[in-house]
Amino acid sequence: MSRQPNEPATMVLILTPWATEQDMQQLFQRIEDKGLDRVVYRAQVRTHIHVLGDLSGESETQWSAQPGVEQVYGLPKPYPMANKTHRRAHTRIPVGSQQLGSEDFVVIAGPCALESEEQGLEAARMMKGLGIEIMRASCFKPRTSPYSFQGLGVEGLHILSRIREATGILVETEVMDVRDVEIASELVDVVRVGARNMQNFDLLKEMSRIRTPVIVKRGASNSIKEFLLAAEYILQGNENVILCERGIRTFETGYRNTLDVGCVAVLKQETHLPVIVDPSHAAGNKTLVPALSLAGVAAGADGLIVEVHPHPSVALCDGDQALHRFQFENLMRDVRGVAAVLGRRTLPPLSTGFATPGPEPALSVPA
Amino acid sequence: MSRQPNEPATMVLILTPWATEQDMQQLFQRIEDKGLDRVVYRAQVRTHIHVLGDLSGESETQWSAQPGVEQVYGLPKPYPMANKTHRRAHTRIPVGSQQLGSEDFVVIAGPCALESEEQGLEAARMMKGLGIEIMRASCFKPRTSPYSFQGLGVEGLHILSRIREATGILVETEVMDVRDVEIASELVDVVRVGARNMQNFDLLKEMSRIRTPVIVKRGASNSIKEFLLAAEYILQGNENVILCERGIRTFETGYRNTLDVGCVAVLKQETHLPVIVDPSHAAGNKTLVPALSLAGVAAGADGLIVEVHPHPSVALCDGDQALHRFQFENLMRDVRGVAAVLGRRTLPPLSTGFATPGPEPALSVPA
Amino acid sequence: MSRQPNEPATMVLILTPWATEQDMQQLFQRIEDKGLDRVVYRAQVRTHIHVLGDLSGESETQWSAQPGVEQVYGLPKPYPMANKTHRRAHTRIPVGSQQLGSEDFVVIAGPCALESEEQGLEAARMMKGLGIEIMRASCFKPRTSPYSFQGLGVEGLHILSRIREATGILVETEVMDVRDVEIASELVDVVRVGARNMQNFDLLKEMSRIRTPVIVKRGASNSIKEFLLAAEYILQGNENVILCERGIRTFETGYRNTLDVGCVAVLKQETHLPVIVDPSHAAGNKTLVPALSLAGVAAGADGLIVEVHPHPSVALCDGDQALHRFQFENLMRDVRGVAAVLGRRTLPPLSTGFATPGPEPALSVPA
Amino acid sequence: MSRQPNEPATMVLILTPWATEQDMQQLFQRIEDKGLDRVVYRAQVRTHIHVLGDLSGESETQWSAQPGVEQVYGLPKPYPMANKTHRRAHTRIPVGSQQLGSEDFVVIAGPCALESEEQGLEAARMMKGLGIEIMRASCFKPRTSPYSFQGLGVEGLHILSRIREATGILVETEVMDVRDVEIASELVDVVRVGARNMQNFDLLKEMSRIRTPVIVKRGASNSIKEFLLAAEYILQGNENVILCERGIRTFETGYRNTLDVGCVAVLKQETHLPVIVDPSHAAGNKTLVPALSLAGVAAGADGLIVEVHPHPSVALCDGDQALHRFQFENLMRDVRGVAAVLGRRTLPPLSTGFATPGPEPALSVPA
Repeated sequence: MSRQPNEPATMVLILTPWATEQDMQQLFQRIEDKGLDRVVYRAQVRTHIHVLGDLSGESETQWSAQPGVEQVYGLPKPYPMANKTHRRAHTRIPVGSQQLGSEDFVVIAGPCALESEEQGLEAARMMKGLGIEIMRASCFKPRTSPYSFQGLGVEGLHILSRIREATGILVETEVMDVRDVEIASELVDVVRVGARNMQNFDLLKEMSRIRTPVIVKRGASNSIKEFLLAAEYILQGNENVILCERGIRTFETGYRNTLDVGCVAVLKQETHLPVIVDPSHAAGNKTLVPALSLAGVAAGADGLIVEVHPHPSVALCDGDQALHRFQFENLMRDVRGVAAVLGRRTLPPLSTGFATPGPEPALSVPA
Repeated sequence: MSRQPNEPATMVLILTPWATEQDMQQLFQRIEDKGLDRVVYRAQVRTHIHVLGDLSGESETQWSAQPGVEQVYGLPKPYPMANKTHRRAHTRIPVGSQQLGSEDFVVIAGPCALESEEQGLEAARMMKGLGIEIMRASCFKPRTSPYSFQGLGVEGLHILSRIREATGILVETEVMDVRDVEIASELVDVVRVGARNMQNFDLLKEMSRIRTPVIVKRGASNSIKEFLLAAEYILQGNENVILCERGIRTFETGYRNTLDVGCVAVLKQETHLPVIVDPSHAAGNKTLVPALSLAGVAAGADGLIVEVHPHPSVALCDGDQALHRFQFENLMRDVRGVAAVLGRRTLPPLSTGFATPGPEPALSVPA
Repeated sequence: MSRQPNEPATMVLILTPWATEQDMQQLFQRIEDKGLDRVVYRAQVRTHIHVLGDLSGESETQWSAQPGVEQVYGLPKPYPMANKTHRRAHTRIPVGSQQLGSEDFVVIAGPCALESEEQGLEAARMMKGLGIEIMRASCFKPRTSPYSFQGLGVEGLHILSRIREATGILVETEVMDVRDVEIASELVDVVRVGARNMQNFDLLKEMSRIRTPVIVKRGASNSIKEFLLAAEYILQGNENVILCERGIRTFETGYRNTLDVGCVAVLKQETHLPVIVDPSHAAGNKTLVPALSLAGVAAGADGLIVEVHPHPSVALCDGDQALHRFQFENLMRDVRGVAAVLGRRTLPPLSTGFATPGPEPALSVPA
Repeated sequence: MSRQPNEPATMVLILTPWATEQDMQQLFQRIEDKGLDRVVYRAQVRTHIHVLGDLSGESETQWSAQPGVEQVYGLPKPYPMANKTHRRAHTRIPVGSQQLGSEDFVVIAGPCALESEEQGLEAARMMKGLGIEIMRASCFKPRTSPYSFQGLGVEGLHILSRIREATGILVETEVMDVRDVEIASELVDVVRVGARNMQNFDLLKEMSRIRTPVIVKRGASNSIKEFLLAAEYILQGNENVILCERGIRTFETGYRNTLDVGCVAVLKQETHLPVIVDPSHAAGNKTLVPALSLAGVAAGADGLIVEVHPHPSVALCDGDQALHRFQFENLMRDVRGVAAVLGRRTLPPLSTGFATPGPEPALSVPA
């Protein structure tokens, strides 16, 4: 998948009312130097210059910096590889027995953080028992405070690999440091770029050098356009990019972040890449996770990544938002129902009727 | 439904590190004057005063303005009538043969604006044919620009009343001016407070003086708390309040507003009032309306209010976002499916299979 | 000042990659029907249609709703009367011995709310003593909660008029209800449209029917473009419009609203109307008011509107943000200094050296 | 500067109305296990538990995850080292002949990016001629698009070092990759953490291992609290932290970012660290840079970092926002004036009267 030339297009330069004749001559020269054509409309207040030809190398910034230019319009979308216009078939990424980006609806679930080999194994067995083929668990934790639990680090990657071997579950984990990308790509099945690193461009470049599928989480304040440009970085070398909407930062404080279902809908129009939703980090609170999960499915997502923990109340990280087993089972029942209405295939249902909150299983390790 | 006394509670005043002994004595006096009790913790840096008793008349602002006070915590929710704590049963509002706020899932649909009696009649017949019992259509248009179509005004209310008589459809419309509330409440079935008027408190007070059901749309930048406080104004006299989430203003420009499904989920936890979703104004673009509608259903809304127009391309207002008939039919099929999964009752399905885009019906009036 | 015709301009329609030949023929017909010309560029993926002629009646919404149209560019600014392009001289509005919009820097100050005739008189005398020629004081309070102090209402307008007579101070106050505009315009010197009413279009229309100067406060979540369109409503009949930046709603919770000094700078480029800054409502906290005031002066504002109260700790409204007399005196010293650096004239300085916090004057009425 | 123990404090747990007796017993046990004390208030609807003792190891997240807990209040500020409460003296950082954080007002200026040794040398000489002691110039460019100029990389650091040697100017540059921190700290005088990397915690940790002063730019959507927590990471080992406000992302599109002068004012109250303002990235447009710069000075910043370029129209990066020489000279005249009013010392003025826009100097290299 090499980069294709951009489409020819028209760029429109709208001049300020105070643009001088000299400004205009310099613009004409610049247009000519680049082998482009022009058509000029002189309106009463503002002059418009239409520039025609191969504009694939042009950027708005360069043109709007020219003296006399007020606005620049009409350049093509800046993410040619991620854009659906250039690749109409959906990208499909195998995950266990399913394919992300097809009619399959894929659920990734597990604890926020890997806390120990025991906790990881217990979680993996619980996930397997619930029909989940791929478990999330972070070894490196991007923590806002330097005084919070920071994760098990590289040793955690080795633990995940052993859990994978012992249970047959696939594993997904975040990588934060450029120096850990290569080893992670060898030890786990899917790597993740966290929301806070969506514009850590050195990390994105490292991700373009591996072949392991990469989940890119949308930065909490990044636009859809910036999100697709982050994907574009990885697509320079690695086709296996999965986009994950996880809530944006707004003025509302009634929950942690605003899950942006409109982003899911726009992405499904704009790109061929698979799109999943993380309801747990958007909610920040387990009571909201079911509603947000179902909203994500209904908005057209190709999958979910949900936090579930065998013992939420002793979780070292984000225990607020991790579902109990019975909550997850009830959620999955509804997810399967909604997905089916929309023509999506999920893994076979495991139970019928409502799950009920039995006691948390006894801990084998002290909390 | 008279206002109930607030629960007793504890308020915590956290003092600044620089609060003086005199500040503290003044606070003690103020607490005593109000007949409240106190417990004081003197910590190394900040002193905390816990205030106990009937705090129903206290406001954070009053206390945080006192010299020496840094923060005020713990006052009860400021919307006692809207709060679920004080009324555990859901408010149910009859709309045609359904009840908003029950297991019924209610769909209100119709054109953005009432443009003429002919257009209104045509729309009403189309809605009836699609199984819709209540039609939206605005007579007064809150337009950002003074040069845009401003609506038919009070004459439009009379037209709606005639359409109602002629077709048997119920009608819903926005009221903007305090002077029009009474007449509107006589001529239509449901009145609406638009997003831009959510904090037009004189209008809210007029709405509390009628008994007609009122849809209050969330302001594009209003918090959930402010939304419930707007409802609280109307609840002073009118119990029939319906909350409508319609998208909030964020940094994202890939669509018009960010539909806040988290708000729907929080409201269903926080209040006994019915909650509906307006996907059309959030999207600003008809291609996104289906995904946002379904996300709203899945997040737990009790209904939808959707823009549909017999001839979207000649609509005088918001033609971008109005669905064509066939698009609405396809959407309704999915809405019914998702609602059923979640145990909601919709009006009986009207068709099976996909609707296809026939030609727009010929216009009886010139565009 | 009648509405001037818009400038001729070019509009560009960018078609979707899937636009059909029929879509295009319909667009050509529509362009022809309106007496406009066209130039068509057929690019590899998207076709661009350039439309020329008198576009003053066209709106983006109408054109983007046409089948086959993806984007619409190039229409002129939608606020011809507020725009500097159409009136290069600054609008100047006399306020006492100064002119808002000239080199004069005007300070309006006073309590948030008028609480009683005594409080109002005391405040007016304090303002006069500090060299302030115009006092703010609200009679109608837009309160988020129905349980908060709602103001003295129309009786307050009469009190303000008597205070004006007794002391010679000019008075400024907010009007919320369309039914109060006329009486207010007779009793006070400057009326105000509050931030929550910036898009209460019926109120804006009433304001266009009076000749009294109107301060329009920017809605906490309204864009600069919407702000200028609100002014455009009033300018249809009333030239005396003053724009007031008062902070916008963002994700930040470290203060109440984010004072947008960039808005001040953009407005000074974009419009001929005077621009003032309200630091008190942005801050929500008196300790931040001096820094925000000075930032407003430095960013190029033509004036300030600041809350000062003779007894902040017993204020019925927003006591948190009202300055004490000595704080205001110190602030004014710095304001005069910064304004002078930028070539602005302020009223003569009243004192030299720092004011110190004497005891609050004894209250003549019980708190 | 080792971490000091947090102050003792009170934490308040507010229980849900549905908390069970068992939930409460588990909470009591947990409190006891940690050696803390409790006081319990049983209100009609909600019970409040006040927890007393050494809370320095407690986090809100841990407690709010416990069954039955609705809200957690009162824990101390989570950034003990950055907080002014724990260090009342201002941190002062020497930059050339001035001290950031003292009464000195420090201006850092230069091009957005280092483009070549020639361009860097020309810029350095221009800065020296304007009385600037420290030049900004980025070698690594965090570019939203993979197709934009990415900077000269590590070779750029060596060029900066040679320019430093040749001209005597100090140099400041951004570091993005953890692998470049050490070499950068050897070759330049001040390193910068860009806004997009404010929560790249591995990078922050590397910054804590050097002694070179570090400018941390606020993420465009990060709160003041998160900003101080990012500083807290670096303060674990490196005291020389400078905070830089550079505009936040809001709904407004009239400029690039909203310069948050309120953040400057809050930081000056909350922390002992120096605070500077970057008006260029907030504006995104050179015409707004003067107003934003002066607003920053007036709001209480300790310095500015401004983009100036010998030839803005051929800049490879952000030419829109770089000032011409004459614009910068005029700005500096006003900056010195405003700073003097506020009692700040700037480097001696270089010229009197207005600078005028001579022709751009001829380029020695082709554009």
